[in-house]
Formats: sequence, C-alpha cells, structure tokens
Amino acid sequence: MASLLYKYSFTTRLYDIDAAGVVFFARFLYFAHDAYETFLEHHKQSVKNILNSDFILPICHTEADFKTPVFINESITIEISLQDINETEFTLSYHFLDKAKKLRATALTKHVCVDKNMFSRKTLPHSIRSLLNSGS
Amino acid sequence: MASLLYKYSFTTRLYDIDAAGVVFFARFLYFAHDAYETFLEHHKQSVKNILNSDFILPICHTEADFKTPVFINESITIEISLQDINETEFTLSYHFLDKAKKLRATALTKHVCVDKNMFSRKTLPHSIRSLLNSGS
Amino acid sequence: MASLLYKYSFTTRLYDIDAAGVVFFARFLYFAHDAYETFLEHHKQSVKNILNSDFILPICHTEADFKTPVFINESITIEISLQDINETEFTLSYHFLDKAKKLRATALTKHVCVDKNMFSRKTLPHSIRSLLNSGS
Amino acid sequence: MASLLYKYSFTTRLYDIDAAGVVFFARFLYFAHDAYETFLEHHKQSVKNILNSDFILPICHTEADFKTPVFINESITIEISLQDINETEFTLSYHFLDKAKKLRATALTKHVCVDKNMFSRKTLPHSIRSLLNSGS
Repeated sequence: MASLLYKYSFTTRLYDIDAAGVVFFARFLYFAHDAYETFLEHHKQSVKNILNSDFILPICHTEADFKTPVFINESITIEISLQDINETEFTLSYHFLDKAKKLRATALTKHVCVDKNMFSRKTLPHSIRSLLNSGS
Repeated sequence: MASLLYKYSFTTRLYDIDAAGVVFFARFLYFAHDAYETFLEHHKQSVKNILNSDFILPICHTEADFKTPVFINESITIEISLQDINETEFTLSYHFLDKAKKLRATALTKHVCVDKNMFSRKTLPHSIRSLLNSGS
Repeated sequence: MASLLYKYSFTTRLYDIDAAGVVFFARFLYFAHDAYETFLEHHKQSVKNILNSDFILPICHTEADFKTPVFINESITIEISLQDINETEFTLSYHFLDKAKKLRATALTKHVCVDKNMFSRKTLPHSIRSLLNSGS
Repeated sequence: MASLLYKYSFTTRLYDIDAAGVVFFARFLYFAHDAYETFLEHHKQSVKNILNSDFILPICHTEADFKTPVFINESITIEISLQDINETEFTLSYHFLDKAKKLRATALTKHVCVDKNMFSRKTLPHSIRSLLNSGS
C-alpha cells in the first residue's frame, strides 16, 4: 500500500559501529532522517525552508525493527515511502536494504503539522502534501 | 503492570538540541540506553560483561512517542520498567519525566537473547532474569 | 600553571566505542563539553543562560591528544583547568584520567567572547571571568 | 606544501546543529572522518580492510579551527590533503569550503601505524603509503 517516494544510499562508517561490532540501534533513525532530508532536497524543499515557514513537522512517534545486524562499510539503500497521510499528519516508512536487496531493518516516523506560533495542529500545507503524493 | 526497575537522571546538553531548538528525536534512544547501562551497573552487571559472555542481548525492536519538546539544560528523569518478559526476550519501557513530573516522552526497547556462537535464540540466563525481576 | 576548575566523571557507553573497539576520537570532545557544561552548572551558570544573554562563547580552536585507547565501561575523570585567559578569550584544558589516575588523553577548547548582535569581539563579562578564576 | 588527495561534499543536517544554531564544533571531526573514509574507498581501500589487516592507523592527535559558523543545510566541500608523512605516521589536513569557496573551518588528524598484535610502531605499509602519495 505504501507509496515509494525516494531511494537514498549510504555507507556505514567507523563511528556508526558500537562495542558489539554492529551499527548501534538508534543510528538507524539518524540514517532515516538523512533519507528524509535528501528526499526533501530532491524536491527543492528542505528542513531549513520548513524551519523558516509558519509551520513545523515534528516527529511525534517512531519505531524500528532490526532483522539482522549491519556491519562496518556496508552499502545500504533506504527506500522511503508514504505509509499514511491525513489532514494534519503523515507517516513515512523506511526499508533498509543491503547490496543483495535483503531487508536488514525497517523504521517509521510519524510527523504532525503544527502552527509555529499557535502550537496547535494545522492542515498540512499544499507544498508538503504534493511532495508526499509524488510517489509511485 | 510494568514494574519499575531504576530511575536515571540527566541534563540535556548543547549538542542534544537540533536546528529546531529541541532535542533531536533519536537522541531519546541514546538517553534510554544510558538508563539501561546505568541500571545494569547498579546491579554489578554491565554491557562489557555481557559482551564477554556467551550470549548477547541485541535490540530487535524499538519505539518512542514524543509528547512535548524537550529543550536545552532540562533535568530529565527516566523511569525504566520491565514491560514484558518471556523465555528468550524482554521489553523495557522508559518514561521521560521533567522536574515537574510531567511525562515528556516514552520509549521502549525489546531485547532478544542470542547465543554468541550459534546465533540462535537462547534462554535468558538467570543472572539477567533475576535483575529484571528486581523491580517493585 | 593551569588552574584546576572542576572534576567531572563519567563511564564510557556502548555507542561511544567504534568498529576498532575503542572510543572514537571525536567523542572525547563531546565528553570535554559535558565537563564544561557541568562546571558551569556547578557555578549556577549554564549554556542556556549564556544563549539567553547578549554574548556567546563559541569555540574557535580545539585540540586533542590520545595516549592510550579507552574501552567500553571505563570510568574516566576529566580534570578541567583554565590554561589561558585574556580580555576577550579563554582556553580550557581537559585531562582524561582513568581509575588508576593514568592520563589517557588530553584536549583543549579556546573560546572567544562575541557580542550576539554585533558579531564582534567583546570583553569577557565579569560573571564568566570570576567563574574561570575560581580554580585552585 | 600540502598535497590535495580528495574532495568530499556533504550537506549539514538538522541534527548537526546545536542549541546555538550552528554546527557543533566536534561534528567537524566526524565530517573529516567521513572524508577520510570516502577517500580510502575511492582507492579501493577501506577502514574495514585495515581493521582486518595486521596494522591499525589510530589517530594520536587532532586539531580544528573554526572561522565562521556553519548553519543548517549548507553545502560543504572538504579538501583533504597530505600535510606530513614519515616512516611510521602521517598527518591529513581538512579544509571546509562553502559553495562560495570560502574557508569556514580547518582540521587535521595525525595517524600512527601500529602493529595490531605487538602494539608497537610499525612502518607504514606500501598500500597506504602509495595512496597517500597519490595527491597532486
């Protein structure tokens, strides 16, 4: 059901690995955010633009599942998809695939649109909605 | 139902804050892990000991919910509780409370016990089980 | 010559360690900043207060030397000292000592006082100067 | 005098920024390490290969100078150069340039070649030496 929005690739680095020899679990959410920011930039949007606008899109919920450990210098591709969207919020899912297309981890982030001055829920602006509906 | 295991306090630092002026969402899971490691040490256990043993306790699932943003130099107490336990896995929950005892965020980590050599599920050792059942 | 200002203790965590099995070199500067922030708080000052004032104290230079690797769950004490101070800037040094008082690493941060509105160098305020001169 | 080895480009992210609204000083050293790892990969080398060999190249000294603050979503190019090399060690320098080719920060890392089993200084292997001498 989820609609693919963007593919983002990266390589795990020396400092992504923890004392157990694998990528530290919370690092995956940093990688997910890198994918999200790169997706925005692909559409001539950016976190910077959003921070300068009258709304913000804070994350109110996140989840991640770890299938098999990821090691140093692995090439990982994140497929970022729109999983859910309504009037004031949207949920993105992230699939972490290795070179062999094996699913190594998944994550999701739920974002709520908030008026920057009123701190109240706000309808998602058209600019964001159209970008989230750009998927295949 | 969850049984309180430990309280861990810390102060948010300059670098915990992101460009939106609040603690970056994935940082909460680092704080949760600090609480977990401190809890282990309170019981004369440690991640180091576990890494030197014949089992590991990797995190296979995590979640977090963010109620209200956390800012710089806030004093936060994490209440870490045992939420669920069975033969081979356990789930810890984390409540992030501010000085006014207001709940600012929650998180959970699900750990599975794995044989270090066989990479297969393994019964939780007594040493870990007793420490997880030490709660009130 | 350097004048001891504060001692800050911490334990290295799972995620501080990199794929080489030791604390990642740049992590030491995060620990140094923790020591600096804790020192400020010991004197009823804080980064938050400074950010709300009319000056800022950005770091314009840093250095670190690594003697022997630091491993997981080591107890480290940072001795933070005033190494140099003049009209508009000051340099703090950090000595990383293990439980056996062995010096494992050193670092320094040079801070310059800047007017928040003019972005020009500014005389260090008395509040900061007196706190930096509190050492033994 | 320094010989240019590689250019590495990246964009600063939401979480690179601290509560002062600028890239946290120690983050620059993570970026520098990204540049170093990418340089190695450009030459079919990697940190992973080195960790699997009989030598390691730990950083024994680092420095950084910050000229002007770097903000969110800035495009930065790091020019990594060989600054110094002798029998058993080498020093890399990093110039952080913005889109207008303005120098925003510099850093350096000094690496020493150590025998993985003996923990003693070792002559730099030919594979590493030739890659460091590949600059213009």
